[in-house]
Formats: sequence, structure tokens, C-alpha cells
Amino acid sequence: MTMIPPGLLPEGLSDRLPPQAEASARLARRVLDTVATHGYERVMPPLAEFEDTLTQRLKSMRAQDLVRAVDPVSQRSLALRPDMTAQVGRIAATRLATAPRPLRLSYAGPVIRLKANQLRPEREKLQVGAELIGSDSVAAAVEIVNVAIEALQAAGVSGLTIDFTLPDLIDMLAAGPLPLAADELEAVRTELDAKDAGALVALGPQAAAYLPLIEATGPFHAAMERLEAFNAQLGGAINSRIAGLRAIARPIGWDITLTLDPTERHGFEYQNWFGFSIFAEGFIGEIGRGGSYAILRADGQDEPAIGFSLYPDPLIDAGFGDEAPKRLFLPLGADAIRAAELRAEGWHTVAALVGDEDGATLRCSHWLDGAELRAF
Amino acid sequence: MTMIPPGLLPEGLSDRLPPQAEASARLARRVLDTVATHGYERVMPPLAEFEDTLTQRLKSMRAQDLVRAVDPVSQRSLALRPDMTAQVGRIAATRLATAPRPLRLSYAGPVIRLKANQLRPEREKLQVGAELIGSDSVAAAVEIVNVAIEALQAAGVSGLTIDFTLPDLIDMLAAGPLPLAADELEAVRTELDAKDAGALVALGPQAAAYLPLIEATGPFHAAMERLEAFNAQLGGAINSRIAGLRAIARPIGWDITLTLDPTERHGFEYQNWFGFSIFAEGFIGEIGRGGSYAILRADGQDEPAIGFSLYPDPLIDAGFGDEAPKRLFLPLGADAIRAAELRAEGWHTVAALVGDEDGATLRCSHWLDGAELRAF
Repeated sequence: MTMIPPGLLPEGLSDRLPPQAEASARLARRVLDTVATHGYERVMPPLAEFEDTLTQRLKSMRAQDLVRAVDPVSQRSLALRPDMTAQVGRIAATRLATAPRPLRLSYAGPVIRLKANQLRPEREKLQVGAELIGSDSVAAAVEIVNVAIEALQAAGVSGLTIDFTLPDLIDMLAAGPLPLAADELEAVRTELDAKDAGALVALGPQAAAYLPLIEATGPFHAAMERLEAFNAQLGGAINSRIAGLRAIARPIGWDITLTLDPTERHGFEYQNWFGFSIFAEGFIGEIGRGGSYAILRADGQDEPAIGFSLYPDPLIDAGFGDEAPKRLFLPLGADAIRAAELRAEGWHTVAALVGDEDGATLRCSHWLDGAELRAF
Repeated sequence: MTMIPPGLLPEGLSDRLPPQAEASARLARRVLDTVATHGYERVMPPLAEFEDTLTQRLKSMRAQDLVRAVDPVSQRSLALRPDMTAQVGRIAATRLATAPRPLRLSYAGPVIRLKANQLRPEREKLQVGAELIGSDSVAAAVEIVNVAIEALQAAGVSGLTIDFTLPDLIDMLAAGPLPLAADELEAVRTELDAKDAGALVALGPQAAAYLPLIEATGPFHAAMERLEAFNAQLGGAINSRIAGLRAIARPIGWDITLTLDPTERHGFEYQNWFGFSIFAEGFIGEIGRGGSYAILRADGQDEPAIGFSLYPDPLIDAGFGDEAPKRLFLPLGADAIRAAELRAEGWHTVAALVGDEDGATLRCSHWLDGAELRAF
């Protein structure tokens, strides 16, 4: 029987070919291997879950963004996962509810949504990450940020920038020292997102009090000084946040560029006190993000957690990690024992199936002549 | 913000937890690493494609078995992949149409269908495989079968049984030396599936001529003798098949159990002259299968291909590959340099976040005391 020829692929869904597919798999492996050495153990949640539990757990996810199907068994709507972090939270709250804390889990796999976002047309992407469940302390944040950096560096990603944010800072200020009504709160957020000082001031004196946060943005140490001056004006209302950021920054190596954007909220819909975005030199857009959040346990209590997720597709698209293996052509009748030895030494062998094959066309640099390697 | 607690998972979809998730990932890695050393290069097709192209390419797949969604961009129906082999065929026929042949590709990833089959309730499973495109010769079959065996053995799977089949044998006989009408052909297939000699004879003399095939089943060498006797009766009509099977069997090591079931067709809906199933000692049901097939190229020509796919979930479910890493507890203030050295030596470290953590509860066998390891 014959397979019918293919049509085009749907927009936003694509094939990864050699060598990018291997580069993608290698990067994920190295990240997972590194986090494993820090005690993070692999979990594999399913590709699909009931839609209602997925959308309830992902406040930022609208049902119409999900790839959905009706489950003939339960007659309920299934949805493909648009994210794995929430699935890992579910695992921690259910099957691993009684596992000792802190619980360290890692994961990697494809996530998919029905509509692409404005910045990237891809609807399927690889997510790789690690979550620490049972704590969102400064010590936990130090561990997560440093494990993320170590994992990326082990995978060969250099020129990293980490951008810190304080996702619930505005809520915290609005509910305390700098009160805002609900409608003002959203307007202030919008202008802080736009870094539009004029528009913020135009919202009135309550909103204008948030102006120093626009300035507390940029290279970490200078931005922190401005954030500390703002904190002093507020009588130390965000002392704990300042101390937390300082502690997280302290062990980060000189080879990492640190920045601060305390009001950044894009991608931090469920994070609370701390968030961070990861960028790599030469690549547009973030390659990962992380932060602290809460998981609702079956007993109704919140459990603190912190983690990071990487989305390495933009790196791979840009050619990161393309490594050509050494390919060795084996003519018909080549010495099988010697070929096995050479594979063990790192060669990838390509065996002839007929007598007149051309190993050079098959991208082999050498061929096996008896026990000897000969260059093409 | 808080993540809402999870409901149950849909039937047939489940979480893999430690250590099974790691065992599954490790098995897939080792298979992919082994096939890579034989020149198979990784591809990553997308999770979803247009439904019509998927169902056209998978004759055995009914549309109602697929997880489907309407694509808002194209207004066409998308379907989640129930299989990756056909996707690899599509890649070979399109984006890699002009790549030199033979083209060797590998892949690994989840596949999903809406309804489980009778034997296993799982609707999502891991598929790992390799395809050789451009040849379905005996030499190509020898390579594929032996690469599959080597990959499984490298992953630690022992006690392998390979069951050979000839998927198009009945069609070939019915169109030639042992003619059958279309309705007879299906009845003969059914009785051969059931190995019901009495029912086969009852279908009449044309059908009864297929009786020797029921006997040509079982341990390879004895079954081949009976198949050869049958071939002699037919005047050598299946000489090429006999020679092919003999050649494929020849290099297979004594540690593999070989069997023959020349009329087995379950799971071989698109294979032609050669197919094989893989079983592992102690596990019910096949863990993989492979065989020869044809890909329809864009120019309307068939291109021969051969490959194998593994479905390792049953092995993992049965506890295969569970390896507990050595876990080392790092008390607060532990020597970071020494900890990094120990990670490089293979330890997985688990760092305390607070002073009173109990490393033994976190399944650590040892803790770091200065530069020394101490057992709990």
C-alpha cells in the first residue's frame, strides 16, 4: 500500500529537519541533565487534559486559544496542553501531594495552542523546565535562577541576560501605601507597560506616585538604586522585595547581564513576588522565564512554588547548536568489527546497500578501507 | 495568583512520575543515540497536521480515531498525529525530496488517538523509530532489523524476540499461483488470522490451498522449512521472499529468538514485502514493529522505504529501566565547589533551603560534611 502525498502543513506548525532537530534535542537533554544533577526529577504529563481543569489552572489562557476535542469516553472537552508548568503543579498537588517537600521536578515536551501570538507564528513549541515545589523563599529563588543559568551554559548558550521583575508589586502597592481604585489600577498598569511617564502623570496624582517605577528599569545595579530610593520614600514598604532581589543577584556570575524591570508583567500572569526573563545574545525575544507562584492543594491551602521554563525554539531557528557529526562511509563488505569500534569512538557510519554508492554524496568525509580511514 | 486544583485526567491519558519518566526518556535517548551512530539523522515533525493529509496517508486510521480541532487560520480540520512514520514519509517526499538517497531519518515523540484500542487503554504513547528511505532491498532490511536490535540492546532491553512476516504474501499468491476472488481473499485472511485450519478448508479448495501457511508459523528455522516446502509446491513462486527472509535472519545473533508468522497482518497495514514485530521477554504484547513500505513522491512515483518504530511504554510501565541516582544532601553553607565536583562525578545534589531540612527524607543516601561524604 502506498502513502498518499502530503499537502502543506498548517500555518504555525512545521518540521524540524537535520541538523536543527538534533540541536533542539541536544539542548533539551543538556538542560535536563544539568537540572537532574541538582536533584530535579523528570515527570511526563500527558499531551491533553480536560479543558476545564486546564483553563482553570491557566488564568491567562482563553479557551479559544486551546486546541480542543470532544472526548468520546467522558463526553467532556479535551484540550492540548498550552503549557507544562500548570501540569507539573497538578502533579505536585495530586499524585505527589504526600511526597516530601521541597519537591524538585523537571519536564520537557511540546506545547501547542490554536492561535499563534503576534510575535511568533509558531503554534507548537518546545518547553523545558524545572519546578521547585514547597518553597518560594529567597533561597529557592537563588537556586532556581542559578540552576537555569547553569543549565543554559551547560547547553552552550552564552551571553545570557536575566531580567528580574516583581509581578505583584503594583497590586501590593495599590493595596497599601499607594492606593488605587480598580479602574485606576488597570490604567496604571497599562501606562507602566508602555513606560509612558506623561500618560501616567495625566491619570492623576495617585497614578503619578508610580512614576519612579518607570525609572527603576534597566541595568540591575543602577535600577536597584532607584528602586531603593522609591522604597525609602514609601517608608520601606517593599523592603522584603529589595532584599530578595539583592540576595538572588549576589551569586550570579559576572558573565551574566542582569537587568531589572520591576513592573514587567507579560508572561507573568500567575507569578507572585518574583519573576525573571532570560535572553541570549544575538536572539530576539526571551528564551525562557520563571518565577514564584502558588499551587492550590487538594486541602484548599496554597503551596508556594518557584520554577523556570525555557522555550529554546528561537535559538534553534537561528542555527544554535548545529554540529555536524563525523560521517564515515562503509563500502559493501566493510569490516563490521572495525566499524563498531569507530562508532564507539564517535563516528557515525553510513553503510552501503549496493556496490556503487557514493559516500561523499551522503556527506561522509571518510570511508573505511580495510581497517584504515581514507578521506574522500 | 493561584492555580486551581486539578480534576482527574481523562481515561487513557496519564502522568509519568519519577523514576519511570526518566527511564522512558533514557530508553528513547539510547535508541536515538544508537541509530544516530548508523547515520540516522533526527527529524521532528509537528504534533498536528491537516486531518485530510493525515488520514490519506494512514489508510488504517479512521478519522474518528483522531483528535481533531478546527484551525481558525485555514478553517480546515487539524488532527493530532496518531503515528510519526507517515510524517517522516511526508518529510522525505517534500522538503527532503532532493536529498541524496538512501535517506536515513530518526524520530521520537508522543502520538495520540481519541480512542484507545482494545488491548491497552492508553491513548497517548511514545513512538521512537528510524526510517531508511530510497530502498526496501534485502540489504536495507538487514540494516533496519539489526539497527533495531542493537538500539534496544544498547538501551538495556534483553530477551528479544523478532517475529518476521510477509505482509503482501496473500495478495501476491491470490493474484498469481493460488487465485482467489475478492470475497474469498478476505475470508481466507480472516481464517489465517485465526489460524483456523478447519474453517479455511471449509471455504473450499481454493482457500484450502493456503493451509500450509498456518503450519509455516513458529520458531524461524522449522517454520522456514515448511514455507520452503510450500514454495516448492508452488514451483518457486515465492523464491524471492524465502531468500529475503534467509538473508535478513543470517546476521542476527544467537541471543535473539527468531520466529515466523508469514500471514500476520495486524499492524502491517501499509507494509509490503517484509514486516517484523519485536517482543521482549517478560512483557506482554509487542514493543515495536517495522517493515518495508512505499512513499508516494510528488512526481507520482512510489519510493521504497523501510523502517521500524518502538512503542516502549509497556516496558516502562513494567518497571524497566528504573535506576535510582545517587543523591547527596548539601546542608546550608555546603562547599559549592566540592558539590560541583561531586555532580561532575555523577552525584545528584539536593541543596537545603533552610537549616533544619532532613536530607534522608529527601531520599539522599549521603550528606556533604566539609569536603567529605557522610552516610545518613
